[in-house]
Amino acid sequence: MRVAIIGLGLIGGSMGLALKQADFEVVGFARRGEVAQRALAIGAVDRAEADLASAVEGAQMVIIATPVLAMKEILAQLGRMLPHDAVVSDTASTKEQVMGWAQQSLPPGVSFIGGHPMAGTEISGIEAAEAELFRGCIYCLVPGENASEEAISLVEGLVRKIGAKPLFLDATEHDSLVAGISHLPLLLSTALVSATCKSPQWPKMAKLAASGFRDLSRLASGSPQMSRDICLTNREHILRCIDEFSKELGKLRRLLSEGGDELEEAFLRAREAREKWLQGG
Amino acid sequence: MRVAIIGLGLIGGSMGLALKQADFEVVGFARRGEVAQRALAIGAVDRAEADLASAVEGAQMVIIATPVLAMKEILAQLGRMLPHDAVVSDTASTKEQVMGWAQQSLPPGVSFIGGHPMAGTEISGIEAAEAELFRGCIYCLVPGENASEEAISLVEGLVRKIGAKPLFLDATEHDSLVAGISHLPLLLSTALVSATCKSPQWPKMAKLAASGFRDLSRLASGSPQMSRDICLTNREHILRCIDEFSKELGKLRRLLSEGGDELEEAFLRAREAREKWLQGG
Repeated sequence: MRVAIIGLGLIGGSMGLALKQADFEVVGFARRGEVAQRALAIGAVDRAEADLASAVEGAQMVIIATPVLAMKEILAQLGRMLPHDAVVSDTASTKEQVMGWAQQSLPPGVSFIGGHPMAGTEISGIEAAEAELFRGCIYCLVPGENASEEAISLVEGLVRKIGAKPLFLDATEHDSLVAGISHLPLLLSTALVSATCKSPQWPKMAKLAASGFRDLSRLASGSPQMSRDICLTNREHILRCIDEFSKELGKLRRLLSEGGDELEEAFLRAREAREKWLQGG
Repeated sequence: MRVAIIGLGLIGGSMGLALKQADFEVVGFARRGEVAQRALAIGAVDRAEADLASAVEGAQMVIIATPVLAMKEILAQLGRMLPHDAVVSDTASTKEQVMGWAQQSLPPGVSFIGGHPMAGTEISGIEAAEAELFRGCIYCLVPGENASEEAISLVEGLVRKIGAKPLFLDATEHDSLVAGISHLPLLLSTALVSATCKSPQWPKMAKLAASGFRDLSRLASGSPQMSRDICLTNREHILRCIDEFSKELGKLRRLLSEGGDELEEAFLRAREAREKWLQGG
């Protein structure tokens, strides 16, 4: 089975490596020659193309792994070149807008099944690609209105073959969930770095900063373009999450300024909730 | 040289292991018998005592590694039992209040050199102790008013022998710096967990949450008592940091609700600042 991967960054490149390990034939599309060459060199693709039509020709499945906002144009182009029974998926961190673009641009016979692997690192680009990136991770799947049962099974099977666990959701629910557990953390990391590095004391703070700061600020090292795309395609859910977070931080601030036992209670409840989460409960 | 360690948690236990590796004789003080036994079993102490006077008798240096708020009473007791030329240090995350208590409680001849190893994990207790915990970390040192040059050298030498890098600071500066890079992250982690786990969607969010959420929430798993003690002994600096952070988060919120290129700019600046920090610049 031949799969075309559009965009060979961390996710597209890792997908190629994982699919090749699972004996798929992989054709990659990358605009930049050095990315294509790197993908070939590490064995993420059997063939790399700089032309979209050549990349998808004869593929049984197309997976779009570009930044979110670039997907609109890719989907419009694919709509004019794919065979009537094609199967298309994506790997975007947000799903509502992508599903809408797919619905608008792809012919009715084409099955679109939105995808979002809950995996990644703050390092972007093909250089960070690894075959095991998806092993054990949850892989959200959002079947489009026109997706056939057969196409859904095909995508679900591919997800299992790269070692991930499929989880079916609708687009709105998906975007609401990831706003809290992925996009809010991204903004907190960014605001933490912005706030601290602006301080006149930053040069000394930087010397002292250790693993706590490193972990809390990690997501601020992600691709700025990708972060912006995520924000702009999941705005309302993220705004709500920021407000819920600010309320909690305000509560902690009040307990701190008042002092007392309630503060320990708040730390205790948060620890219990996190421990329960770590234990999968 | 014999060192007495008061409190055998993660830091005290690790200190014992590291000092024993560096050929110090270590006597530990722990109220609870099971902690003392565990410390003996893993080789963190040569001898464990449940009586403070017996623990410090004949020690050339005393290191207090209890939670911050417990140090006040320990210092008061030590003040009545230490020889006139004793050398005392601590490992608390905040320094102003501890320095004040030491100044009040210890006889003028006793040298107090406050210490704070910039190392640790969210897991507390002797079970998590490891000899290499301090290897390569910055170790803040805050000499008290009465500390002799000889005593300062002694503590500095001990810090180097466990593989850490001494950094001399005054107490106020120390507390201000760590408020931004340690205590603010702790409160952000806690507020993130509180905000998300309160959501009616939390059971589904918990399934999707991956490495981003795990890292951002890590500090919420710390000891609630230790977190409270840190907050209550560094209140003003932390309140200021919360306000600076909230301003930055508010700015990101505004850029998000307005949309546009400035948002990408903000992500870019934060990434650059973090990359510079990682490169030690």
